[in-house]
Amino acid sequence: MVYPETFTALRSPSVEQWSDFQKQEFTPKQLEDHDVDIKIECCGVCASDVHKISGQWGDTPYPLAVGHEIVGRVVSVGSAVSGVSVGQRVGMGAQCWSCGDCQQCKNNNETYCKFQKDTYGAIQTDGTISQGGYASHVRVHDYWVFPIPEKLASVDVAPMLCAGITVYSPLVRNGAGAGSKVGVVGIGGLGHFGIMFAKALGAEVWAISRSDAKKEDALKLGADGFIATGVSPNWAQEHEFSFDMIISTANSTENFDLGKYLSLLKVHGKFIMVGLAPGDGQKVSAFDLLGNGCFIGASHLGSRTEMLAMLDLAAEKGLKSWSETIPISAEGCKQGVTRLLKNDVRYRFVLTDYDKEFGQ
Amino acid sequence: MVYPETFTALRSPSVEQWSDFQKQEFTPKQLEDHDVDIKIECCGVCASDVHKISGQWGDTPYPLAVGHEIVGRVVSVGSAVSGVSVGQRVGMGAQCWSCGDCQQCKNNNETYCKFQKDTYGAIQTDGTISQGGYASHVRVHDYWVFPIPEKLASVDVAPMLCAGITVYSPLVRNGAGAGSKVGVVGIGGLGHFGIMFAKALGAEVWAISRSDAKKEDALKLGADGFIATGVSPNWAQEHEFSFDMIISTANSTENFDLGKYLSLLKVHGKFIMVGLAPGDGQKVSAFDLLGNGCFIGASHLGSRTEMLAMLDLAAEKGLKSWSETIPISAEGCKQGVTRLLKNDVRYRFVLTDYDKEFGQ
Repeated sequence: MVYPETFTALRSPSVEQWSDFQKQEFTPKQLEDHDVDIKIECCGVCASDVHKISGQWGDTPYPLAVGHEIVGRVVSVGSAVSGVSVGQRVGMGAQCWSCGDCQQCKNNNETYCKFQKDTYGAIQTDGTISQGGYASHVRVHDYWVFPIPEKLASVDVAPMLCAGITVYSPLVRNGAGAGSKVGVVGIGGLGHFGIMFAKALGAEVWAISRSDAKKEDALKLGADGFIATGVSPNWAQEHEFSFDMIISTANSTENFDLGKYLSLLKVHGKFIMVGLAPGDGQKVSAFDLLGNGCFIGASHLGSRTEMLAMLDLAAEKGLKSWSETIPISAEGCKQGVTRLLKNDVRYRFVLTDYDKEFGQ
Repeated sequence: MVYPETFTALRSPSVEQWSDFQKQEFTPKQLEDHDVDIKIECCGVCASDVHKISGQWGDTPYPLAVGHEIVGRVVSVGSAVSGVSVGQRVGMGAQCWSCGDCQQCKNNNETYCKFQKDTYGAIQTDGTISQGGYASHVRVHDYWVFPIPEKLASVDVAPMLCAGITVYSPLVRNGAGAGSKVGVVGIGGLGHFGIMFAKALGAEVWAISRSDAKKEDALKLGADGFIATGVSPNWAQEHEFSFDMIISTANSTENFDLGKYLSLLKVHGKFIMVGLAPGDGQKVSAFDLLGNGCFIGASHLGSRTEMLAMLDLAAEKGLKSWSETIPISAEGCKQGVTRLLKNDVRYRFVLTDYDKEFGQ
């Protein structure tokens, strides 16, 4: 069988063979009135994909297709869908459902809905497990389907749908803009968007990295300044009390001297973690926070409203992901996740050529 | 010698004998143009006093007089003092100096000045060590001297000068007021003010404690609700997503399930630590913060502006510390700090009868 009865995916079969992707048919969730079927054109490779299938986050329902930076064309719409139509190019990110009814959902905080479901690996309303974008198609409620502005190429926009929105949301929610000074820790999939969006929003933005290796890239991305923490021994003192917020994309807590990063903040400044380091966290003492009364927070994706605003900003300013494309196949997916695991990417892989793998 | 050449204090002699206070003369800092000499009437006993002299915070310059909730009468003023005059009743809190020149000092954030000095145990400009309020007098820059409204009795106001301002400042800085819902963790010296001030500011306030033992007190203090975390197994679920901010006065991280407390917050709500637990802190993972995108912070005392506003609010609303007085003496100080160490206080000790110990 093929679409529409089944979708085809490249799925991780087990924790032991997590990167040996297998081509499999699967039956999508039952079609509901608000559902949209998207024939996928391309999909970014996110660190979450690696965390999820390599078992770093615990229970994973194998076999699983990951991928949640999806761009494609609408091929079918349920009877109640009104915002998008067949043939339209759309995107989908890392969340595929929320209740729509709680305080959070009614407040543009639907990514904090306690019933929220992930694009892959979640139990859907009909009991099936959601499957991501390493697949021919995806079926999703129209609230989570975002029209893509014409000016943006699919491969340029795909990584924005998770990596981009993950930094865009905390930037706008915490006032990044003219007159504010933003630090971005880590220059990778998330970090390169952090620099780009903070700059596009009008902030002064500094990239913070361990070495100078990505300095040139950071400046090209729009950074006004660069701090190499492994190079300048006095980096923290030199920049103390100077940042309004720091977006940290660090996805490891090893050798991460949190207190020094916090000391860079102005009084009541915010250190916002968007890189989800596996493990049980990092010790924080009230004393670490007392020097400037700063705050530590985290942020989860971004609302539909923010997603649409981010895409408009990207179109208006001509922003593009810095990415490397890999034609999708079992081998291509393996290459993507294993190179990403080694941080061997500048700064995002995008799987492409879906037609060749899954047919027209 | 006696005042003005020397002051008399009850000082902790060493870490080994930390609660065996000894009566000693000491030479105060050199008199400067902005200095005010205060003859002390009474002084609160703060948990910081215990942490400091029992060695829990590390290096302590013994012998040391602690005490930083000081009320007394001005007995002498330097040539540049203008705000207060001889005979006036004034208070002094936990900070005795800041540079006055940095971004923080110029922004009502002088308690975050990196050169800030504590009321006791700090090296002053002339090299002497600052001594606190378990003493006959204190000499301090007039910026740190606060006129006390007539309506407030000295023993009622003394504990506000550290415990009170420590909770008042984060309450007002984070928007406690009509329409907001505030949690106060721990009902003690700080917590009882947290309830009282949050209520006086117009917020809905809930006390959060391990048992029901202090429930009646909490309600008398003004709490609208009470959560006993050791009594109701589902306390966290029952109150999830409901608080705008939580002021935590907990001064231990043992058996403190931070994740559950954080889950009580609304999206982007704030958990603000004002109890300074000794030790190297508590593990925090981005995952703990992700469910509601909340923030963890800490707060250090409060600005002069806030101190004066707090005293006005207390006078206007007739707020008083709930305290127990102890006549000052070596024995009285020992009783205060040792009972406080055992949490055997509701909710503050205030040392009184200074004239009897130190003379008219």
